[in-house]
Amino acid sequence: MHNKALVAQGGGPTAVINQSVIGVVLECRKFPQIERIYGALHGVRGIVDEDFLDLTQETTQNLELVAETPSSALGSTRDKPDRAYCREIFETLKAHEIGYFFYVGGNDSSDTVRIVAEEAEAAGYPLRSIHIPKTVDNDIVENDHTPGYPSAARFVAQAFMGINLDNKALPGVYIAVVMGRNAGFLTAASALGKKFPDDGPHLIYLPERNFDPDAFVAAVEATYERHGRCIVAVSEGIHDASGQPIIGQLGKALATDAHGNLELSGTGALADRLADLVKDRLGIKRVRADTFGYMQRSFVGCFSDVDQREAREVGEKAVKYALWGDTDGSVTIQRVGNYQVDYDLVPLVKVAAKTRTMPDHFIDEAGTGVTDQFHMYLRPLLGSGMPNEFRLQTSNRVAKIRKRG
Amino acid sequence: MHNKALVAQGGGPTAVINQSVIGVVLECRKFPQIERIYGALHGVRGIVDEDFLDLTQETTQNLELVAETPSSALGSTRDKPDRAYCREIFETLKAHEIGYFFYVGGNDSSDTVRIVAEEAEAAGYPLRSIHIPKTVDNDIVENDHTPGYPSAARFVAQAFMGINLDNKALPGVYIAVVMGRNAGFLTAASALGKKFPDDGPHLIYLPERNFDPDAFVAAVEATYERHGRCIVAVSEGIHDASGQPIIGQLGKALATDAHGNLELSGTGALADRLADLVKDRLGIKRVRADTFGYMQRSFVGCFSDVDQREAREVGEKAVKYALWGDTDGSVTIQRVGNYQVDYDLVPLVKVAAKTRTMPDHFIDEAGTGVTDQFHMYLRPLLGSGMPNEFRLQTSNRVAKIRKRG
Repeated sequence: MHNKALVAQGGGPTAVINQSVIGVVLECRKFPQIERIYGALHGVRGIVDEDFLDLTQETTQNLELVAETPSSALGSTRDKPDRAYCREIFETLKAHEIGYFFYVGGNDSSDTVRIVAEEAEAAGYPLRSIHIPKTVDNDIVENDHTPGYPSAARFVAQAFMGINLDNKALPGVYIAVVMGRNAGFLTAASALGKKFPDDGPHLIYLPERNFDPDAFVAAVEATYERHGRCIVAVSEGIHDASGQPIIGQLGKALATDAHGNLELSGTGALADRLADLVKDRLGIKRVRADTFGYMQRSFVGCFSDVDQREAREVGEKAVKYALWGDTDGSVTIQRVGNYQVDYDLVPLVKVAAKTRTMPDHFIDEAGTGVTDQFHMYLRPLLGSGMPNEFRLQTSNRVAKIRKRG
Repeated sequence: MHNKALVAQGGGPTAVINQSVIGVVLECRKFPQIERIYGALHGVRGIVDEDFLDLTQETTQNLELVAETPSSALGSTRDKPDRAYCREIFETLKAHEIGYFFYVGGNDSSDTVRIVAEEAEAAGYPLRSIHIPKTVDNDIVENDHTPGYPSAARFVAQAFMGINLDNKALPGVYIAVVMGRNAGFLTAASALGKKFPDDGPHLIYLPERNFDPDAFVAAVEATYERHGRCIVAVSEGIHDASGQPIIGQLGKALATDAHGNLELSGTGALADRLADLVKDRLGIKRVRADTFGYMQRSFVGCFSDVDQREAREVGEKAVKYALWGDTDGSVTIQRVGNYQVDYDLVPLVKVAAKTRTMPDHFIDEAGTGVTDQFHMYLRPLLGSGMPNEFRLQTSNRVAKIRKRG
């Protein structure tokens, strides 16, 4: 009785989210109390629909290959369950004699785990419910960082490293919009691609600061005058002083998702509007804008090995906490050395539905760049084998002959 | 006298363009006839301005590191020289006693080399002028493929591999716009990320075929009904039956570049317009659009090792042709085995200002996909270590309990 475990994935996929699921599955196999480990397809939606795979029948070899594959192998959902939905989840868990519930997800997912745990307790049903963190936004409280963020941050850093080289060869203004509704961690990662003092991004705009179009144009102009070019990293969630998203100020009705949030990703509108602003106000001819889009969280072949390892470990630890501990909770990552981490289980209420943003000491005084402390924070997370940039030596100039004067 | 060589880079950067420059520099050092090897900054612009670096003073170690760095280390230009401009180029070459001129670039660059060579010949000046091919578009005639394309193609294939995994986890319609004004080679590379029969991209739109919005909407609808999702790869250069670019049909004036071409890259407008079309006509809720933008040609850390090797070799061969042969020309790549290439020098007039597009046998009958022949053509170019996708086994379904009926 109650000798089955269930694992599911919720919210936006990451490059390493399967590591956590596989960590759960492989660790469950080591406990004789667990007879079967099920995976629900498409998160909580698959639980209420009873769409389960029996992961106990998977070979270790295939599980290890799936672990290295980005995005949610079990599928995901944007459903945000209310109390009645969570009751349905619980009824299904009960019907299948699930004694251990593991949910890999972000803030919303941890809230779901909290409510399901409450339902089980109210019903006197023996269920251990553990939330396993993931998000490319790095916005879960109580954590040094969140699995999924380091790999996405590495993608952003490598992308800007290349953008900088491209923009140096063909100078102009370049603007790229990076994911991040409330937290600027991912956009800030763009700074980690810099090596030389004149490397871009030269300006970084984060949702932790108010965005002022006039100040933005002035800053681009000053950078362009200084370097003959300007690279800007912009968080999709930038907003004005009243909290209104800049992307919402386009004169065009924008779609909202099931959570009532404005859709920020999947459109190039913000980048194009900022580019138009620069063109119109400054008259600079070569202005280009990109929106990094879904590649940031799904690109195959750009991982942080540190992230892969930790995503595996939070899955493994979740099972240990569930089987050896006697409490529900959310697995968290704590930094204990430079660089090493340890894990902890915190009560679900401490994490559920809360949002972490970038602390002030990671943002520079002008509000358009990051501090050395942020570099120190992020660099070890990016893992080994980061690419590097090399330049020809500019000291070896040849004397002019035709234009001597 | 005339014992100096000059190398420069023109047009859009690629991930491996520095390999060609370094190939030239290192090979020049092996010929006692060449005393100095100069690099012009920002292409032909740097030649008329006499902005030269003496690359003879570089260490081999640094040259090798620069070779692995994407984008044009010498800088590039979009200048398209006319006869008078080319005369200025020639006068500068003469003033500096340049006997060997190597220009790494695309179609426009090869035309510049042709005119400069003509000027030298008319003046009776001993100059060997060699064009070294590069372009992510793969649109240079007389070549099996062009250096720069394989690495960009690999980026596009890996990007779509990830996009497909993301879209499978959170189903909907996803549209991505890929670079390619006249040639669809880069957009077609999106198909190389497919592994399972239901993997995306499900539809591929190339500039080699006319784009019909109604047929596009119908194809998206049919795919969505079949798979519950639909991924579309679109070339930025798609046009209607009259040849008018679809991006130009936005009701908004678009900028043109120095060559009089509409600016297609650096804006998300086309992707957003196509997404709106799908939303409006089909009423599908989750429709997302990305524009891959400049990452395609500059992303650091996504290379084809085959491309790196060949880009180096065309530079090396260019020097051998210049020193041992007695003709000007353009270096070309010929496929001699599956997979091995050899190189050839063809007259500049055969390549200059011409554009190659995808042959019919690479495009399927519906015009929205590629053939096996294209897969056979492209796969070896992507090089070693391509990532792979693995799925959980869907055969291990758990029987439903609550919803038995």
